Amino acid sequence: MNLILLDDADFIDSGRVLLSGRRHAHITAVLRASVGDALQLGRLGGCRGSGRILRLGAVDVELAVNLQQPPPSPLPITLLLALPRPKVLRRVLQGVTAMGIKTIVLLNSSRVDKSYWQSPFLHPAALRDQLLLGLEQSGDTILPEIQLRRRFKPFVEDELPGRVRGCRALVAHPAALSPCPASPPGDLLLAVGPEGGFIPYEIERLSAAGCEPVHFGRRPLRVETALPALLGRLATLPPASA
Amino acid sequence: MNLILLDDADFIDSGRVLLSGRRHAHITAVLRASVGDALQLGRLGGCRGSGRILRLGAVDVELAVNLQQPPPSPLPITLLLALPRPKVLRRVLQGVTAMGIKTIVLLNSSRVDKSYWQSPFLHPAALRDQLLLGLEQSGDTILPEIQLRRRFKPFVEDELPGRVRGCRALVAHPAALSPCPASPPGDLLLAVGPEGGFIPYEIERLSAAGCEPVHFGRRPLRVETALPALLGRLATLPPASA
Repeated sequence: MNLILLDDADFIDSGRVLLSGRRHAHITAVLRASVGDALQLGRLGGCRGSGRILRLGAVDVELAVNLQQPPPSPLPITLLLALPRPKVLRRVLQGVTAMGIKTIVLLNSSRVDKSYWQSPFLHPAALRDQLLLGLEQSGDTILPEIQLRRRFKPFVEDELPGRVRGCRALVAHPAALSPCPASPPGDLLLAVGPEGGFIPYEIERLSAAGCEPVHFGRRPLRVETALPALLGRLATLPPASA
Repeated sequence: MNLILLDDADFIDSGRVLLSGRRHAHITAVLRASVGDALQLGRLGGCRGSGRILRLGAVDVELAVNLQQPPPSPLPITLLLALPRPKVLRRVLQGVTAMGIKTIVLLNSSRVDKSYWQSPFLHPAALRDQLLLGLEQSGDTILPEIQLRRRFKPFVEDELPGRVRGCRALVAHPAALSPCPASPPGDLLLAVGPEGGFIPYEIERLSAAGCEPVHFGRRPLRVETALPALLGRLATLPPASA
């Protein structure tokens, strides 16, 4: 937890918050903070800054907060991801959230096990927990939006062409002819298949909707490796500073 | 397991192997293969190819093998990694092995918990298990070499300058002035710190030994996210084919 996240209900007044539960435990047991210490805080959907501990109790902690710093820049990439198995999904959501992705579409695909759609990890509160962990890791305050699309064909035919408009859309495919480009300009959409990849029919439908197949070498990689590798390649980093 | 790996002891003669244990279980329970089926195989340290099932027993399986295809190209990057906590180490070793890294130096650092060096996961057989999983995932046959360096200063002062010669050496550092380059030419060395990063003294010593600090944005990322992201950015992919 590199940033303690606050939501509206935490505020006693405009400059003070009262925290209990997991955040209180983190402040006392991990940070071992004392009254007067300053901690890094951020308001969900808002600014980051610092909070000074005013009172530290056995079950709650009161802080005076000063939040004026904007969150880090998002990664302007819409992620279209074939639903991974639940254990992998949690790690992947934390990772891509930490990298700054703000729109994640979880999509069905021929090689997605149907049971994955029944996972309790897809409940909104469970998804939100993983997103919060990603934000806390990377010092961000802006929750990504997750959209669930349980039917491949209607999404790809009816919805995807509109989303692809105005951005460059890519689909990761080990058999593609072109390599994944490095830091292409503008907004991007990246489609990533399940373990074993999208089937040829799916690649064809994604291509027809405007997604360009690109490869990241010829090695089959796990989703949790391939995703940060592709995002690390696609990201545009700030130029050298003086 | 995208590739079933063979070692010398599996060969009955130059063209036949006998497999039991985990590989037999994979062939029967996961692949549900039958006599006559062809499977993808590779010989550790050698070529890949196919094997046809000659006999399928309750505890072992005999295959006729034909191995003529070279393994995929390695990623010409030496990885210098502050020893992660054991659970993360396993995942990271599988991932970087799958990506094609062939030399991994696990290094001490001020923020590495001393207990990590006592982990049973550092035993050679335990390390080898993780490397094999990475090779099986990516269809590779060449085991990476892992070197353990329990003392930061002697390694960085006495050994690192020689390793940096003839390659471009980088150290990932969120406060660096320059961004991580995309697909720089030639051999590379990448140093990645522990959770929380290398301390300023360590960055200074690594710089003095020839490692150029580079950042991957300003977001603190977990090692398991930062590593594939950096490698994905540094990798040179094969150009577009016809």
